[in-house]
Amino acid sequence: MISFENDYLEGAHERILHRLIATNMIQEAGYGEDDFSAQAAEKIKSAIACPDATIRFLVGGTQTNQIVIDSVLQPYEGVIAAETGHISTHEAGAIEFSGHKVLSLPAKEGKIKAEDVDNLVETFYQDANYQHMVFPGMVYISYPTEYGTLYSKKELEALAAVCQKHKIPLYLDGARLGYGLASPSADVTIQDIARLCDIFYIGGTKIGALCGEAIVFTKNNEPKNFTTLIKQHGALLAKGRLIGIQFLELFSDNLYFDISQHAIDMAMKLKTGMLAKGYQQYLDSPTNQQFFVMPNEKINELQEKIKFARWEKYDDTRQIVRFATCWATKEENIDALLALL
Amino acid sequence: MISFENDYLEGAHERILHRLIATNMIQEAGYGEDDFSAQAAEKIKSAIACPDATIRFLVGGTQTNQIVIDSVLQPYEGVIAAETGHISTHEAGAIEFSGHKVLSLPAKEGKIKAEDVDNLVETFYQDANYQHMVFPGMVYISYPTEYGTLYSKKELEALAAVCQKHKIPLYLDGARLGYGLASPSADVTIQDIARLCDIFYIGGTKIGALCGEAIVFTKNNEPKNFTTLIKQHGALLAKGRLIGIQFLELFSDNLYFDISQHAIDMAMKLKTGMLAKGYQQYLDSPTNQQFFVMPNEKINELQEKIKFARWEKYDDTRQIVRFATCWATKEENIDALLALL
Amino acid sequence: MISFENDYLEGAHERILHRLIATNMIQEAGYGEDDFSAQAAEKIKSAIACPDATIRFLVGGTQTNQIVIDSVLQPYEGVIAAETGHISTHEAGAIEFSGHKVLSLPAKEGKIKAEDVDNLVETFYQDANYQHMVFPGMVYISYPTEYGTLYSKKELEALAAVCQKHKIPLYLDGARLGYGLASPSADVTIQDIARLCDIFYIGGTKIGALCGEAIVFTKNNEPKNFTTLIKQHGALLAKGRLIGIQFLELFSDNLYFDISQHAIDMAMKLKTGMLAKGYQQYLDSPTNQQFFVMPNEKINELQEKIKFARWEKYDDTRQIVRFATCWATKEENIDALLALL
Amino acid sequence: MISFENDYLEGAHERILHRLIATNMIQEAGYGEDDFSAQAAEKIKSAIACPDATIRFLVGGTQTNQIVIDSVLQPYEGVIAAETGHISTHEAGAIEFSGHKVLSLPAKEGKIKAEDVDNLVETFYQDANYQHMVFPGMVYISYPTEYGTLYSKKELEALAAVCQKHKIPLYLDGARLGYGLASPSADVTIQDIARLCDIFYIGGTKIGALCGEAIVFTKNNEPKNFTTLIKQHGALLAKGRLIGIQFLELFSDNLYFDISQHAIDMAMKLKTGMLAKGYQQYLDSPTNQQFFVMPNEKINELQEKIKFARWEKYDDTRQIVRFATCWATKEENIDALLALL
Repeated sequence: MISFENDYLEGAHERILHRLIATNMIQEAGYGEDDFSAQAAEKIKSAIACPDATIRFLVGGTQTNQIVIDSVLQPYEGVIAAETGHISTHEAGAIEFSGHKVLSLPAKEGKIKAEDVDNLVETFYQDANYQHMVFPGMVYISYPTEYGTLYSKKELEALAAVCQKHKIPLYLDGARLGYGLASPSADVTIQDIARLCDIFYIGGTKIGALCGEAIVFTKNNEPKNFTTLIKQHGALLAKGRLIGIQFLELFSDNLYFDISQHAIDMAMKLKTGMLAKGYQQYLDSPTNQQFFVMPNEKINELQEKIKFARWEKYDDTRQIVRFATCWATKEENIDALLALL
Repeated sequence: MISFENDYLEGAHERILHRLIATNMIQEAGYGEDDFSAQAAEKIKSAIACPDATIRFLVGGTQTNQIVIDSVLQPYEGVIAAETGHISTHEAGAIEFSGHKVLSLPAKEGKIKAEDVDNLVETFYQDANYQHMVFPGMVYISYPTEYGTLYSKKELEALAAVCQKHKIPLYLDGARLGYGLASPSADVTIQDIARLCDIFYIGGTKIGALCGEAIVFTKNNEPKNFTTLIKQHGALLAKGRLIGIQFLELFSDNLYFDISQHAIDMAMKLKTGMLAKGYQQYLDSPTNQQFFVMPNEKINELQEKIKFARWEKYDDTRQIVRFATCWATKEENIDALLALL
Repeated sequence: MISFENDYLEGAHERILHRLIATNMIQEAGYGEDDFSAQAAEKIKSAIACPDATIRFLVGGTQTNQIVIDSVLQPYEGVIAAETGHISTHEAGAIEFSGHKVLSLPAKEGKIKAEDVDNLVETFYQDANYQHMVFPGMVYISYPTEYGTLYSKKELEALAAVCQKHKIPLYLDGARLGYGLASPSADVTIQDIARLCDIFYIGGTKIGALCGEAIVFTKNNEPKNFTTLIKQHGALLAKGRLIGIQFLELFSDNLYFDISQHAIDMAMKLKTGMLAKGYQQYLDSPTNQQFFVMPNEKINELQEKIKFARWEKYDDTRQIVRFATCWATKEENIDALLALL
Repeated sequence: MISFENDYLEGAHERILHRLIATNMIQEAGYGEDDFSAQAAEKIKSAIACPDATIRFLVGGTQTNQIVIDSVLQPYEGVIAAETGHISTHEAGAIEFSGHKVLSLPAKEGKIKAEDVDNLVETFYQDANYQHMVFPGMVYISYPTEYGTLYSKKELEALAAVCQKHKIPLYLDGARLGYGLASPSADVTIQDIARLCDIFYIGGTKIGALCGEAIVFTKNNEPKNFTTLIKQHGALLAKGRLIGIQFLELFSDNLYFDISQHAIDMAMKLKTGMLAKGYQQYLDSPTNQQFFVMPNEKINELQEKIKFARWEKYDDTRQIVRFATCWATKEENIDALLALL
């Protein structure tokens, strides 16, 4: 059955698999000390125009969020995030597991506002009892957000400015970074992201890789003994080459950006097609996740032929559903979906 | 340069890579809910002759140890292990990071004794202050051990009996399980392991896979909500298929055992060759890791042409070195090494 | 300077000090195994009409909340609480420090609603991704709340019913329990509390003791090896007698309830007096904490002569202030305050 | 029944109780911000001749060890301690609970050697895999040790020198500090302790107080936001005055040292008496804990009339027993004990 259920349904882009085969019997050092990882890091640093960045590779997104946040925060600090953010809702308490509170802010279409961050931090330090409270120690955002929406350059600059003002790092979860940057609505480049964020990660799992995320520390700010911290969190991959090779390929010949563009093209076709058929958007997502409000009956009927995600209840007769495209989405499947609607 | 530095120098067995390619565009559910993982679990249950076992796949060894131990222990419990055990020494405190003490026992050639376990538990409960102490809640062993040695069936049965007596689970770290089972000295089968241990894991990373370990709960004893616990530890792989497919292939047509046998054959050739040339064993390892005592001078000379691991200081003029073979070791490289000695 | 800043400004009720002196040289076992603690437990069980209860004594409130919540929850569970609850805001992340998320609910005057709890739990289990989320594992309320308000018997019964329905414990933080029960608005007794809650604690620190809180497990539900868990949290008092003796005295001759009544009488006098002088209540608190909206200018002027707490900003020219009475409040000080207004 | 079971059998020195009564109704700020705590800190700084020290008061010993160690260590660091040290054996894993490994060293009569520390740290950094291991981040010792023995000034200076060499702090657990300093065998003063240690604590619970320990940071090295860290560990006492007042009294008119001397005098009388009666010392303790090897039969007989602690098994017919004296020990009780032997 054709599925739009999420953006990690297939394996990896074929160029990645070929590269794995081509390099397979080369003996390399473990734990990310291999040459492939070093080359991949150089490629990324070049792509983001940030020669001083430090690049580290981890396996998955929640792992990356947990390790970055736990390693960067002081024990008395928490991380500010949208109440709808991934770390707030869908990581099974991985941040709290490592001892830190998520300080949640109200979100609109998945986004938080610089002024709300500013207000939270100002209010904190004005409170006579602030020593009895969790210190705001970092701002977490994702690009795109959980709802597929994008921060504008102006919004990102405002967030970066507030973080600088309060000397707390801005961390951007880029699990779907490519899909954000490839959107027609995006007005930032990956270089802008690198310039504005203190830390971010470039998602591989959802964009062509079997697994893997690339953390970027942009300001000479890799935590001390980070390898040991990764190991301690159980996340140091013996064959670090596995991720290194994948990112080396993703950042060769623009692959990462090209396949991201494909997913966005497919998403736009899907969106246009569904709007043309009169379906109601839940919100206007400019990226690879498309949210619609659909009658329960229609959902049940459609799910006999197509897989997609029931997101949340809208009202008694309708639910919000999500269709996700990705690097591997076939145009014929979009056609098939639209034909069924 | 030829390397015997460890057993995770190359990528994956080519059959695994081919299977990844063959299955690449099949859309599958995430988080280990895919069909490949289900099929791999069936293959493993059949191989271990334990139809009621639950199989779960994780990415790496330290991660597996951390999650199993933290999920199975009560908060007031620690895990008994050899003072030379992997969790005691080389996991950067991953067990303590999740709140549990490693209760270390003296080890001989990497192995602990059932009677020492029994004594530790007996002594604990006889202590008037035991409520102020860490409860012994699990026994951790590895097969083979950090020194490549093997528990005999009798020793394993004794450990299992002590664990049963005290109602604490026996957990076996099988990062190199295949290399243990393929050894000419092994007197246990994987079915014996499944019968005697409450939990064990079958190592993939060091035996043919790009990554991946298969946890086996043999006694209907998978921790409640284990998926959530895995997620909380940051270890739930989105594309769980990546590990499922690898284990499916490893447990097809005896691949796992065949390639383990190859590594052992190479190790025995290396051992015999070095003994013939008069090199002194540090201990007589029957598996894929061979430890020798070598003069510092000779080490320096040899390391210009061959990579291998300096293990620890032996005396002022000599060190213990380790040569590791694996599924990918080429016989010609053993020949080259022996020619250089 | 006279202070109404909080309810832990003085030492202890003189009867407690005399009991400490009277018992001082009696040799007793440590760690809560002393006879005084045993007697105090009996007195409490009798007062709450719950003969099967287990009573444990700890030093302070945040400590108690942390240990109870961490000991009762499974690792994959969080605790539901008002977004204004003490554990949500003023315990420096002590709950998250021990690995658990606080699942916050909107609160009105410090109180949460049974239907909101029900809805949260229902929604959780209906979510297709609930395994990736923090399980709701306990409900935390306080009586009185952070704003001095009280749950009615009906509201408590509704919360208890929802907790029973979902098989999660109801835990009541009684840091100021006596002040709640002594309020003219209270329609529950301590026996009701014991009947409706699975766990609660009777606050001593704020009600006559030097330190100490009495945890009550009402349903044969003390966590296994709780002494060890307390020790592990660093909270096992060597001279447990110190708390045992204090609660023994507090629960002799109705002392706990009598001194609670005094605090409420003083609070009502303060409230009536301030209302008579035209001061605006922030909300109508029926207990020992009285919140008023006061012009900044008036606050500054008054604070030269009287201490009280600035609670939070109300608008640009006014703040919410808090006056707290307690067991030790002198009526002449209330008179002095009212004379100054 | 007369008891020598431990050194926390009675309440508090009567001068402390009188001071609590005398100050009882004075209104003071909470959380250690009271004047009594400030005065006590000044008294201690003067007594230790370390005007720049920071003093903080906590309730108990395990709590103090946990908070100091967790607050000072980096997450990737562990603490070096004797394998017989209190944190290694009798704190229920409180150090591991907060995420840190205890790196244990062999001990002789409870003491570790500077050269063993030096060797551990040197070996660590020479290890090719040190990034996969727990970093040595602190040295923990106690004075007196678990066996009542004392480090000589020379030994302490050697430990301090090694710590300085490796830039890791030396932390001294002084639960029984007074009893160590008052020993005829002690060749250090409290000023020496303050000079040689980076952090230490002065035990109150076992030396005259109801509860309370005074942490001393001697080198302007109090952890940032330490109040918040204490709160997060559940250990911030609302009525901080309770400990402040006690230490104020203990450090007035030499009380702490005088009552320590009494305990030592009693211990020496007990030791001399028992030796005279032919009892065999387990080791020659110069402080308030006296260890003897006693036939099981004699133990059973004696325990019908006197309480004391069975320490550990010596051989099949004998056990090691401990008699502890303290500030409150009555000379007549020593006489009674000796009469019974």
